[in-house]
Amino acid sequence: MNIEMIRAAETRLSGHAVRTPLLSNPALDGVAGRRVLVKAEALQHTGSFKFRGAWSAISALPADTPGVIAFSSGNHAQGIARAARAHDLPALIVMPEDAPKAKLDGTRALGAEVVTFDRASHDRDEIGAELSAERGLTLIKPFDEPQVIAGQGTTGLEIAAQAAEAGVTEGDVLVCCGGGGLTAGIARALEAEAPALRARPVEPVGFDDVARSLRSGGIERNNRVSGSICDAIITPSPGQITFPIMQHLCGPGIVIPEEDCLRAMALAFAHLKLVLEPGGAIALAAALFHPDAIDGDAVIVTASGGNVDAALFQTALTRYGPS
Amino acid sequence: MNIEMIRAAETRLSGHAVRTPLLSNPALDGVAGRRVLVKAEALQHTGSFKFRGAWSAISALPADTPGVIAFSSGNHAQGIARAARAHDLPALIVMPEDAPKAKLDGTRALGAEVVTFDRASHDRDEIGAELSAERGLTLIKPFDEPQVIAGQGTTGLEIAAQAAEAGVTEGDVLVCCGGGGLTAGIARALEAEAPALRARPVEPVGFDDVARSLRSGGIERNNRVSGSICDAIITPSPGQITFPIMQHLCGPGIVIPEEDCLRAMALAFAHLKLVLEPGGAIALAAALFHPDAIDGDAVIVTASGGNVDAALFQTALTRYGPS
Repeated sequence: MNIEMIRAAETRLSGHAVRTPLLSNPALDGVAGRRVLVKAEALQHTGSFKFRGAWSAISALPADTPGVIAFSSGNHAQGIARAARAHDLPALIVMPEDAPKAKLDGTRALGAEVVTFDRASHDRDEIGAELSAERGLTLIKPFDEPQVIAGQGTTGLEIAAQAAEAGVTEGDVLVCCGGGGLTAGIARALEAEAPALRARPVEPVGFDDVARSLRSGGIERNNRVSGSICDAIITPSPGQITFPIMQHLCGPGIVIPEEDCLRAMALAFAHLKLVLEPGGAIALAAALFHPDAIDGDAVIVTASGGNVDAALFQTALTRYGPS
Repeated sequence: MNIEMIRAAETRLSGHAVRTPLLSNPALDGVAGRRVLVKAEALQHTGSFKFRGAWSAISALPADTPGVIAFSSGNHAQGIARAARAHDLPALIVMPEDAPKAKLDGTRALGAEVVTFDRASHDRDEIGAELSAERGLTLIKPFDEPQVIAGQGTTGLEIAAQAAEAGVTEGDVLVCCGGGGLTAGIARALEAEAPALRARPVEPVGFDDVARSLRSGGIERNNRVSGSICDAIITPSPGQITFPIMQHLCGPGIVIPEEDCLRAMALAFAHLKLVLEPGGAIALAAALFHPDAIDGDAVIVTASGGNVDAALFQTALTRYGPS
């Protein structure tokens, strides 16, 4: 997965993906103690950056592909469903039964067939492989797939250009991290376009497989794969493709309590007018509430998704909203 | 107020204002029965388009200006406060005492001095003129001021370009309308850049001064100037400068119940990941819930502000959020 693949993905995405803005606000700068630039990928089609990877992968398929299958907690699902429909391809999505209702509904509304499974007792990779074989569908993995990583990497090309416009050419780029598709893609794009910007994964306490893998130098696994409000970024372990890229290019991981995501969601509501889901707010939470983990006068964060149920969003506002 | 002034304002705003995205979502298209393109000005600095007019006016002042004064229910206030601070100018803001707390707090946080008044018993124009004379400050009116209208008009230049990129070159552009600064500015920009796009003001029931003025051909006044959740767009009457422009260029006004704004806020939350305030959601509400008032296969709406208190936003989600 190299920079040429990211540039080619950018060409295929042109006119189809949103070039999301890089937002800022003096109140957030005040909380963080440094400039904070927020790449607002919640505004991407389907409410998360996942649309980029989905479009990149589906637009690269041979013309005679009969259909696609994906397994996802919901954001990859919606990205695949929308990109598949635009390409007139049937999409079958395997989702955990405890996925947020907003994500299950959103995926079905985009015309995909949804099959649910129990996250604790079944392995989604196995289910995906089985259904894929049965129906002759092309499996599009959520992160460990070169064209998906290339699509997510287009976020990094935009960050490099937009940060330079804002006068920021060095510092940390905090990335909400599950399996590492977005992190690895951004890291590869920054290596080429803004080498003094350094991608760093952010994960919730208890699901810090990437941070631990970066420390140990080998792929580490999480003990649990459910039970977090950060459902979007809960994966068993970094990928075979994403991990070596992250190991080569990323700074140390940052691991923070998931409750901080709710605090960050309330501040994004108040100051950025942006709806974020917990997993999509974790990089912002790290910038705002864990400034000692970061170096430099400015920090860039991905606000990677906003597919949150109304009830949980209201909880964030009730607990941490401006009074 | 001509197109050259808008283009000059665009130059002064370049690198200082956010080029907000034009968002869309198939679920909203489904509700509206046509394509809906949403100019997301809630993402502008200070949470509303008002920053554009404020920056335009303040950046055009003579270098020896001692300071500025503005009267505003909150969005113009914050725009002026932030633009003044960036220009190292003191700012005094006269605000109604019933303005949303988010707006009062936001204005103070941006370093402005805030003076409150009772909207029912006092005329803000008089208070503004008095304080302006007393302290030698330059009054920057919220809408009936050529450089302010020119700044708001830059929204129209962006809409013309972004709509063309999306393949939309004709149809209605629905604008959340108070005194008509944004509406007139956009109308003037569209006249030059996209003449088959037509600006139309949208107002809440009971505060439809602009719609009635366009019908009667003379400036009409509202009976009330408070008591609406659409505080951002409640003004006594269209301006002496804005009205003739709107009369010349705009289509008929659309008047809708304010409750529809809460419904639109819930859908913007669910599908656009955008936080809107009631007055900033009224054009979207017209597009979604009053499709018969509109012609054409596509409609463009301004989502002009997002400075809403958490409690009211939660009310919108509780009443109309996805279950």
